Amino acid sequence: MKDFLSVADFDPTELATVLARAAAVKQDAGAVAGRFRGLRIGLFFEKPSARTRISTEVASADLGMVPVVLKGDEIGLGKREAVEDVARVFDRYLDALALRVYDHEHLRTIADHAAAPVINLLSDLEHPCQALADLQTIAETRPLEETVVAYLGDGNNVAHSLMLGAAMSGMSIRVITPPGYEPADGVRDHAVKLAAKSGGDVEVTNDVAAVAGAHVVYTDVWASMGQEDEAEARNRLFAGYRVTTELFDTADPAGIFLHCLPAHRGEEVTHEVLEHPRSRIFDQAENRLHAFKGLLVHLLGT
Amino acid sequence: MKDFLSVADFDPTELATVLARAAAVKQDAGAVAGRFRGLRIGLFFEKPSARTRISTEVASADLGMVPVVLKGDEIGLGKREAVEDVARVFDRYLDALALRVYDHEHLRTIADHAAAPVINLLSDLEHPCQALADLQTIAETRPLEETVVAYLGDGNNVAHSLMLGAAMSGMSIRVITPPGYEPADGVRDHAVKLAAKSGGDVEVTNDVAAVAGAHVVYTDVWASMGQEDEAEARNRLFAGYRVTTELFDTADPAGIFLHCLPAHRGEEVTHEVLEHPRSRIFDQAENRLHAFKGLLVHLLGT
Amino acid sequence: MKDFLSVADFDPTELATVLARAAAVKQDAGAVAGRFRGLRIGLFFEKPSARTRISTEVASADLGMVPVVLKGDEIGLGKREAVEDVARVFDRYLDALALRVYDHEHLRTIADHAAAPVINLLSDLEHPCQALADLQTIAETRPLEETVVAYLGDGNNVAHSLMLGAAMSGMSIRVITPPGYEPADGVRDHAVKLAAKSGGDVEVTNDVAAVAGAHVVYTDVWASMGQEDEAEARNRLFAGYRVTTELFDTADPAGIFLHCLPAHRGEEVTHEVLEHPRSRIFDQAENRLHAFKGLLVHLLGT
Repeated sequence: MKDFLSVADFDPTELATVLARAAAVKQDAGAVAGRFRGLRIGLFFEKPSARTRISTEVASADLGMVPVVLKGDEIGLGKREAVEDVARVFDRYLDALALRVYDHEHLRTIADHAAAPVINLLSDLEHPCQALADLQTIAETRPLEETVVAYLGDGNNVAHSLMLGAAMSGMSIRVITPPGYEPADGVRDHAVKLAAKSGGDVEVTNDVAAVAGAHVVYTDVWASMGQEDEAEARNRLFAGYRVTTELFDTADPAGIFLHCLPAHRGEEVTHEVLEHPRSRIFDQAENRLHAFKGLLVHLLGT
Repeated sequence: MKDFLSVADFDPTELATVLARAAAVKQDAGAVAGRFRGLRIGLFFEKPSARTRISTEVASADLGMVPVVLKGDEIGLGKREAVEDVARVFDRYLDALALRVYDHEHLRTIADHAAAPVINLLSDLEHPCQALADLQTIAETRPLEETVVAYLGDGNNVAHSLMLGAAMSGMSIRVITPPGYEPADGVRDHAVKLAAKSGGDVEVTNDVAAVAGAHVVYTDVWASMGQEDEAEARNRLFAGYRVTTELFDTADPAGIFLHCLPAHRGEEVTHEVLEHPRSRIFDQAENRLHAFKGLLVHLLGT
Repeated sequence: MKDFLSVADFDPTELATVLARAAAVKQDAGAVAGRFRGLRIGLFFEKPSARTRISTEVASADLGMVPVVLKGDEIGLGKREAVEDVARVFDRYLDALALRVYDHEHLRTIADHAAAPVINLLSDLEHPCQALADLQTIAETRPLEETVVAYLGDGNNVAHSLMLGAAMSGMSIRVITPPGYEPADGVRDHAVKLAAKSGGDVEVTNDVAAVAGAHVVYTDVWASMGQEDEAEARNRLFAGYRVTTELFDTADPAGIFLHCLPAHRGEEVTHEVLEHPRSRIFDQAENRLHAFKGLLVHLLGT
């Protein structure tokens, strides 16, 4: 079965199909309610999670699935048990495996050893379910094609998946990071290739001037879970990349603000921008739920 | 929608309605089984819980709801994420929010920012779901009006909610604590006002003689979760407030013993009283389940 | 109601009935789907668990039950609350209690105080649900009677339950341990008595030559959860009991390899044996699910 470890595991048509499905189930949840009754999904979290946890558990239950949630030391990927053994055992019990892991390689090993679809709920490399919600939220305000997205901050997993998804959707994505925090070369190269096919565009820069005219301004916390010890150093380096009202005003006058949350007010974004009338952060969070349903329908459904 | 952060969020009529509903669903669980199918409730625990956890999860599932349980570092109220953001995000995914928190103010913030009903599953200030079960259990033995309740021990959250609920129900509540451990002035004043309207009575005293003639003798552990470091000092101060057979015998001859559990045998209560024929502690625990159903039907129902 | 703390809580006929039921539900899960709708089962884990957790939660949900999962400090058996109180409270909320505990005595106390069936999900003394899956897996390859099982390693809870179950089923069980790590005398004596009735045979030895001709070669990790500090000493003592291809080749040419997992490659078993064509470890893991359904149908059923 198809896995979803990276946004780029889909081709652009599949991605558009999933996004259309997510939009449809948002309008009419009843159309898919109970659709996968009797199927079971494992939701595994090596790192704590609130948004992902709730949205995926609710989405699965709405579809009639039995969600089984495991956390931290219950799994012990590669510590308590060889990753390939975990994959093969879980595959006997479950019809879909969704995992938040530290190491993206573990996801690849699991996908190689499990017949069930494997879904990335965040790894060090990507956050593709977040990108689905991001694109769904943007598509609620304007057609994705020719939309300019400015992502500010760390070139992290969230940025990677957004880059790939935007590049596949014919969008122009500008990733604006402090020097040394650019996205991984491999992801950028992949995004550039995808953009070449879709008519999109990928730019990586250290200059916040690239926010000018963007239809979407997006940021994420500067230090993610597990990077708290670097927080002080990062605060200095990233200070110029804070999304302030002044910076947001350089974007398109109808431009929206996005953030995958949780947000640290006064660090990567000011209170004013978070609460701005054109901030769509709670719609974006809500869309995690609908996007996950759209994804499951695509991966499991007929 | 209506919240339930404090017993006093209800007026006396509403409180009586919820208690009547709780009694009815105890007799006939089938009458409400599956009633809220498709609705989702978040059950959040900053502190560990067994009784509250099981009773609320089972009650919700019996009503057909999808319960989503989050614990400790998964939520990070005010640490990992601003409380108002947590509220607004969870509100997008869930139809009711029930939380056990350290800080009652967090509940107020959540209630202010969420459209869904917010339910207090224990805060530093109140434990209103416990009070519902307490009153339901008492009402199984005699009419609440003119019942005398003697609560011994710490003037804590459990005592607060019991005071308010008793005062609203026309009962006479005597709260008997060591000097310095009286209930909060604000809660006492509120209870006194409520009692004045209902024909009830509120007394706060340091004298265990107030147990005399009581229809209900109630106690709680001396040191709650998070206060274990004070345990030794409390043990000395509270020793005179232990519910022994001798003390229980000063109550009404048909009087019952209640305890919200867990109990520490030989500290706040002796083994003999816990296991006394007139101890109703397990009925009281069971009523947590029925009371929570009654509460959900009132808050969500038509 | 009947409890299942030990394999020997069943008589041989009951054991065979449960195994037959497990085999039947493996073939036709639909026959029991939703059978116990409305019933609630508590799944309690003092120690972390993946396989047991997922298999029991999925099995319960497939049968229509509401599974409530509690872990670690949420329960606090004998610490946060007296074990008999936990039992009596949980019994008010739940129709079955399944627990993974450190201390088998706690299970006995709970069974004494709860009307609901109590199921052992692993204690220091036994792992009877594992034994059900073990026997089910063996029975998929040959009739249990006259089957020779060689268990190598620590004479632990897994070995205990396997000994009792094999002895009840007319099998020949050889438990091969380093000196000092033999199974408990009481369990061995019990197994010997059961084998005398069934026509089976029980042998405890320190000599790996006893693997010769066995139809089943079974091992477990040398240091279980909580024994990691002894790991180095155990590694030296147990080295001669490793299941290598060379040792496995001394078993019956059609003999199968079993392991309750998680496995530590290169310690108690080599990678080659784990991945051997006659390794049935993932069938065995899968059977945890079916065996637990068979058990619930027997304990709760009509």
